[in-house]
Amino acid sequence: MPSPLHVAFCARDTGIWRIDRISAVKGAALPAAERLDICEGSALSLPPGAVWTLRGVTSNARYTRRAELDSLTAVQEPLGRPQSRCAALIPIRKTETWWALAQDERRAIFEEQSHHIDIGLHYLPEIARRLHHARDLGEPFDFLTWFEYAPEHSAAFERMVDSLRQTPEWDFVDREVDIRLSR
Amino acid sequence: MPSPLHVAFCARDTGIWRIDRISAVKGAALPAAERLDICEGSALSLPPGAVWTLRGVTSNARYTRRAELDSLTAVQEPLGRPQSRCAALIPIRKTETWWALAQDERRAIFEEQSHHIDIGLHYLPEIARRLHHARDLGEPFDFLTWFEYAPEHSAAFERMVDSLRQTPEWDFVDREVDIRLSR
Repeated sequence: MPSPLHVAFCARDTGIWRIDRISAVKGAALPAAERLDICEGSALSLPPGAVWTLRGVTSNARYTRRAELDSLTAVQEPLGRPQSRCAALIPIRKTETWWALAQDERRAIFEEQSHHIDIGLHYLPEIARRLHHARDLGEPFDFLTWFEYAPEHSAAFERMVDSLRQTPEWDFVDREVDIRLSR
Repeated sequence: MPSPLHVAFCARDTGIWRIDRISAVKGAALPAAERLDICEGSALSLPPGAVWTLRGVTSNARYTRRAELDSLTAVQEPLGRPQSRCAALIPIRKTETWWALAQDERRAIFEEQSHHIDIGLHYLPEIARRLHHARDLGEPFDFLTWFEYAPEHSAAFERMVDSLRQTPEWDFVDREVDIRLSR
């Protein structure tokens, strides 16, 4: 795990990813934009003219146990694979009730009840992902998850997202936007 | 647990807390300064003329289980008690090895081996504390802990700090500064 990486997702008129659609799953959507520019680095100088910008930071694992981390590491593949011409950015916010829970309570909902890690593992290595934490940065969302996959795995991606949205964990999601992209 | 509160500790020539001493426990110290100003709020406009500023954010519990959280909540007292005329600000940074550990490995070192929560609980309500997370903000320290206590509990505070520094958890601390203050 490298040091925290600060990432800004900037919706504007340039960027390698074309925004195909923005859907409000729960709560307010985000304004339409043409393209998404992804800026990485701790001294972020944000490009001008963004319609919206969402910031997050990669961080240490919060729920994942050693055996789970080893399973994930053994099969996951990095972002940036040439065949990954589809992407999704899914910002979510969780309720105050979620954040007031103790660590063991959140872990039990996250994995023992919702199988969040297990569901993600099932779709590796086809669906590559990177989680960004945003709550402690004072952002409007708590998490920004970025996914990349090849067009032939689009149906698998839909199944994965649907599975997660049916879990008890998702009862604690009070805002979710689903942004689909291609290049 | 309220929403994350952004806090900046600004060492400068004004502020209600007088800085009595700054000690390097491990790694580099921080420059001397007269007083400490504490600014709270997500839209922090930092005062000018600071010798140094450390920023952090209160956040959700990362290791604490429900039973432990209930024990802490039952006895802890807030910051700002009139008799709390002594304070300490202890910024620490942990190693990359620590941050690469899985959640269950960090929890085991933190509590089952080091009794971090249990040690803190033993000194409640005399020693009030607030933890601020800083690693994900790109700060030079990972945590800033602020303690407040009455002068008659100074010896107890020293015992608490000594106990924590002798734990296996502290083997993962690679920078620590100890700032003592009074008002």
